[in-house]
Amino acid sequence: MDETAPTLQIFRAGRPEWRDATKTRPVRVGPVTFGAGRPVVIAGPCAVEGLAQTLEIAQAVRDAGGEMLRGGAFKPRTSPYSFQGLGERGLEILAEVRDQTGLPVVTEVMDTRRVELVASYADMLQVGSRNMQNFPLLIEVGQAHKPVLLKRGWSATLEEWLYAAEYIAAQGNLDVVLCERGIRAFPLNDYSRNILDLNVLPALREETFLPVIVDPSHATGRADRVPAAARAALAAGADGLMIEVIGEHTVRADVSCDGEQGIVPSVLRELLAYARATSPAPSPGP
Amino acid sequence: MDETAPTLQIFRAGRPEWRDATKTRPVRVGPVTFGAGRPVVIAGPCAVEGLAQTLEIAQAVRDAGGEMLRGGAFKPRTSPYSFQGLGERGLEILAEVRDQTGLPVVTEVMDTRRVELVASYADMLQVGSRNMQNFPLLIEVGQAHKPVLLKRGWSATLEEWLYAAEYIAAQGNLDVVLCERGIRAFPLNDYSRNILDLNVLPALREETFLPVIVDPSHATGRADRVPAAARAALAAGADGLMIEVIGEHTVRADVSCDGEQGIVPSVLRELLAYARATSPAPSPGP
Amino acid sequence: MDETAPTLQIFRAGRPEWRDATKTRPVRVGPVTFGAGRPVVIAGPCAVEGLAQTLEIAQAVRDAGGEMLRGGAFKPRTSPYSFQGLGERGLEILAEVRDQTGLPVVTEVMDTRRVELVASYADMLQVGSRNMQNFPLLIEVGQAHKPVLLKRGWSATLEEWLYAAEYIAAQGNLDVVLCERGIRAFPLNDYSRNILDLNVLPALREETFLPVIVDPSHATGRADRVPAAARAALAAGADGLMIEVIGEHTVRADVSCDGEQGIVPSVLRELLAYARATSPAPSPGP
Amino acid sequence: MDETAPTLQIFRAGRPEWRDATKTRPVRVGPVTFGAGRPVVIAGPCAVEGLAQTLEIAQAVRDAGGEMLRGGAFKPRTSPYSFQGLGERGLEILAEVRDQTGLPVVTEVMDTRRVELVASYADMLQVGSRNMQNFPLLIEVGQAHKPVLLKRGWSATLEEWLYAAEYIAAQGNLDVVLCERGIRAFPLNDYSRNILDLNVLPALREETFLPVIVDPSHATGRADRVPAAARAALAAGADGLMIEVIGEHTVRADVSCDGEQGIVPSVLRELLAYARATSPAPSPGP
Repeated sequence: MDETAPTLQIFRAGRPEWRDATKTRPVRVGPVTFGAGRPVVIAGPCAVEGLAQTLEIAQAVRDAGGEMLRGGAFKPRTSPYSFQGLGERGLEILAEVRDQTGLPVVTEVMDTRRVELVASYADMLQVGSRNMQNFPLLIEVGQAHKPVLLKRGWSATLEEWLYAAEYIAAQGNLDVVLCERGIRAFPLNDYSRNILDLNVLPALREETFLPVIVDPSHATGRADRVPAAARAALAAGADGLMIEVIGEHTVRADVSCDGEQGIVPSVLRELLAYARATSPAPSPGP
Repeated sequence: MDETAPTLQIFRAGRPEWRDATKTRPVRVGPVTFGAGRPVVIAGPCAVEGLAQTLEIAQAVRDAGGEMLRGGAFKPRTSPYSFQGLGERGLEILAEVRDQTGLPVVTEVMDTRRVELVASYADMLQVGSRNMQNFPLLIEVGQAHKPVLLKRGWSATLEEWLYAAEYIAAQGNLDVVLCERGIRAFPLNDYSRNILDLNVLPALREETFLPVIVDPSHATGRADRVPAAARAALAAGADGLMIEVIGEHTVRADVSCDGEQGIVPSVLRELLAYARATSPAPSPGP
Repeated sequence: MDETAPTLQIFRAGRPEWRDATKTRPVRVGPVTFGAGRPVVIAGPCAVEGLAQTLEIAQAVRDAGGEMLRGGAFKPRTSPYSFQGLGERGLEILAEVRDQTGLPVVTEVMDTRRVELVASYADMLQVGSRNMQNFPLLIEVGQAHKPVLLKRGWSATLEEWLYAAEYIAAQGNLDVVLCERGIRAFPLNDYSRNILDLNVLPALREETFLPVIVDPSHATGRADRVPAAARAALAAGADGLMIEVIGEHTVRADVSCDGEQGIVPSVLRELLAYARATSPAPSPGP
Repeated sequence: MDETAPTLQIFRAGRPEWRDATKTRPVRVGPVTFGAGRPVVIAGPCAVEGLAQTLEIAQAVRDAGGEMLRGGAFKPRTSPYSFQGLGERGLEILAEVRDQTGLPVVTEVMDTRRVELVASYADMLQVGSRNMQNFPLLIEVGQAHKPVLLKRGWSATLEEWLYAAEYIAAQGNLDVVLCERGIRAFPLNDYSRNILDLNVLPALREETFLPVIVDPSHATGRADRVPAAARAALAAGADGLMIEVIGEHTVRADVSCDGEQGIVPSVLRELLAYARATSPAPSPGP
C-alpha cells in the first residue's frame, strides 16, 4: 500500500490502548463477547430451511454449549439455479428462534439494499468471502450500528482483509470480528477444496486488535474433518469458531446447501466438551 | 457442480446454433462487435479524472485504432482512503467524450443501487473481478438491457466464472463478454502481482460461445510489460484486449490510480499496428 | 494416475492389516516409535555447526522431553554461496552427540552417491522437500535399510507425495514417516513464506497407514509462531513434530541457516509440557 | 536473499557486457544458437521408445523446420511402476538419430552418477522441473562442459530459478538456457494441469542475460492447446520452444508417456510456418 491513510483505525499501531501484543479489543454481541479470552462458538445450519429445522438445530447448539446461532437467509450460490435462501422469511425464523433459545443470531447480507432489513433482525451482520471487497456493502454495513463478522476472501492477502475491515471502521464501527475460512491453493480439487490457514492468526495478532475466529466447516468442506480442524484452530489461539450443523438424523442429501460439511449435534457436543476441557492455549503473539 | 441446472444458457452444449467449436456468438456494442473474428481493442484511463484528461486519452485511443473507451467513474479501491472515482460526474464526462469521439463506453458498476444510473450513461456495463460473485449485482446487471463485460475473479475457477455469466444469462441477457485479467498464484509479490492465464482461453472455447478478451494491464501491472502480454493474448486467440492508457506526457505519480500500468498512446499505436499487421491467429481449440 | 500399479504398497487398501481407518503402521527408530499413539518430538539445529553447539542443543532437547535429534550435515541452500553444511564432519558430530545423549539421529541426504555414507551414521534418513521427486535418490534410500523421513514437496499433491513414498516402498522398505512442512500458496511473501496445511492429515489417514508428522518450523518460518503451529498440529492429530532449535543464548544473526525460525530450549520445554498435558486428540479419521 | 553472493555471475548487473536490456548472451549447441534473435525450436518425443519411433519423429521435426531433437532416455515418472525410459540404450538411439538427421540432441539427466554418461551422448543436458533444486546434480552438470537446459520448477520463484542457474554458473559454465514450462496454481485439476506463465519472461530479461525458451507441451498438457500457447510464447518474446511430438499416425494410448500432449508433425509444420512468417516480436524489455 503506497497510499498512506489518514487514520488506520483497525491497525494496532494506530490505537495506543491496544498496542500491547496480547491485547484484543473485545466485541460484544448481546451476552456474548469475542476476544475476552474464552473462545466463542457460533453454530447453526448452513441455510435456514424452515422453523422446525432451525429451532431443532439451535436448541442442540445451545445444549452443546454453543453461544450463538448462525444461519443463512440470503445465500450466495455459485449457480443461479441453486437454492438461494428463504430471504425475509428466513430472517423472521431466525428472530423467532433467538427468542425461544436466547442465542444471538448472525446472518449474511449480500446486497446494499438489504442491509437495513437484515440489521433489523440480526444481532450481527456477516459479510461473506465473496463480498469481502464489495466496498459499497462494507460501507453500508459499517453504518448499520451492528457488530460485523467479516469473512476472509479465499484469496485475500492480509492487507486486503484488513483494508476491508478498515472500510467498516471508517464509518465509525470498530465492532468487527474477522473469520478465517480456508484459502484457495493448488490442492483445490485434490484432497480439500480449501486449505485452513492458521498461519494468518499470529500475523493478524501483530497487525490488529480485532478478534479472529475460524470457520472449520468451509475450511475443510467435510463433516468428518471439522473436529480436527476446530481443535487445531483453538490450539492456534483462535478467539472462536463458526461451525455448520445439521440435524442429528438429517439425511445429508436432503440438506439444501453444503450438506456434506455440517456436523451433527452429538459431534458438536464432544468437540465443545474437548474445547472447554483444554486449558486455554497461550497467546500466539510474540 | 452436482446440482443440475434447468437450462445452462451460456454453455455451448445448450445452444445448438453455437455448438461448433469455431463459433462464437457475437456481442454488439454500438458499432463494435466482439467475437466476429477481428479482435476489438478497448482502451482508456484507469479512472476518469476530468474532461480534459479523458478526452485527450480517448482521442489518442481512437487515433491509434482503438474501437472503444474504458474509464472508471466508480472505482473499487483496496483502501477506503484512496481515490474512489468521480461518481456520476465521471459518467457525464464519459458520455460527453463518447459524443465527441464516437467511441462507445464501458465502465464499471459496483452497487446494485447504481446499475440503472450507470446503464443510463454507458454502452456496456463492466462487472469487476472483486464482484464476479456479487450475485445481486449480476442479477441487476442482467436486467439492465446492456451488454456486459464480466471480468474474471482473480481466483475463479472456470465453473465459477461461467456460472457468474449464467446469473446474467438467466435474466435473459446473453450479451456477455468475458475478460481474463490475470490470476493470483504463488508469485504474487515476486515478479508480478498477477499471472496472465492464457490456458483458460481454449478451455472457454470448448465450454461456451461467449467472446473472451484479455486485460494485459492488470495481468502484468507494469506498462513496459503490457505490449508483450497483449501480443501473446492475440496470438493465443483472444477476441480483444482491454488496455489502460495514460496521457503521452503524464507523470505516472500524478495518476490517481494504477499509474504504473497505463501505456502511453504512442505505445498503443505501435501495438495496434502490430496487431493489425499480424495475420489473425488460427482459432485455438480442436 | 491412469496407470495402474502392480501393488501400491503404501496405500491402505493394498494391505488388509492396516485397512481400519484408525490404524497406523508403527515405524521404529531405535527406542522411538512413530504412529503408536504418543506423538514423537524430533528437535535440533537447522545445521550442525560444531560439536559444542550440537551437543548443547541436543542435551536441551533431551531435557525438554524430545525423543530424537535432527541436524543437517548436507544442507540444500537456495544460493550456491550460502553455507552448505559440514558434510561428513557433520555426520561424525551427530554420531558423537547421539552417543552422549542417547537420542537417535535423523539427517538429510541429497545425493545418491552419499546415501551409503549418511546411512552409516544416521538412524533415519531424511529426504527433503526439494528432493521429494528425486526418484534415483528415493530408490537408493529405499535400499539403505534405514527408516526414512519423507518431507512433502511444497507444492506436492497428495498423489505425488504418496507415489514418492511408494518409490521407497517398492524397494522393500515400508518404514517411511511422512512430514508436512507447509505448502506454497499465494501469500508466499505476504505474512508467511509457507502455509501450514493441516487439511492433508485426515486425507493421508484415509489413503495410507504411514505415520505423519508436522514441521512447524518451516511451516511458519518464525520462531515466535512455531509454538501455536505445533500445538495446532498435535490437536489435528499429527503423529509427531520436527522442530528447529537454537541455543538459549544464541544470537539469531550468527546462526548459519534459518536463524529466524529456531526456538530456544525454554520455549521447547513449555511446548512439550503443554503437549504432554493435553489429552491425546481423538483420531482425525472418520 | 539476505545473503550477498561474492559474484552473481548470471545476473545482468554482474556482467558489464550484457547490461543493456536488449542483450542476451547467446548459447551455442552445435549449429544451433539460442538468444541470437531467431527463436530455436526443439522438438521430439516425450520418451525414446525405440530407434524407428525416434528416427521417424526426428526426420519429421527436421522437415518441419525444427533445429534440435528432444527425447527422454531417463524419465522422471510420478509412479515407480510407470515406464522409466530405456536408459543407456535410449542414449545410443539419440546419438544414432543425431548422426542420421544432423539434429543436436538434448536429453534429461536426473542422477549425479549418470551425468558423465549422459554428457558423453548428448549435445545439451536437461535438468528437469523436479530437479531444479537438486543441488548436487546442478554442480555435477555445471562441470560437464556441455550447455544446460534448466527447466523451471513448477513452483519456483524467480530467485530460486536464477540461483539454480547460478549453481551451474559457479562451476564456470555460463551456457545455460532457461525453460518456462507452466506453474502450479489453484486451477491445478480444473481446466489445465499447469498455467503457462509468460509474465516471467520480461522479468527474466531484466535480471539475467540467459536465453529463455518455453515448453508449451507441459504448460498446457493437451495437444490441441499446444499451438496457441506456442504462438503466444513467441509473441511474448521467447527465445525458442521445446515441443513434444508423436508420430503422425500414432495412437495416443500407445505412447509410453504423456501421450495426450504430443502434437503430430503436420501440426508442428503449420506452427513453424506461422512462427517463421510472423515478423519477430519486439523485445519485451523496457
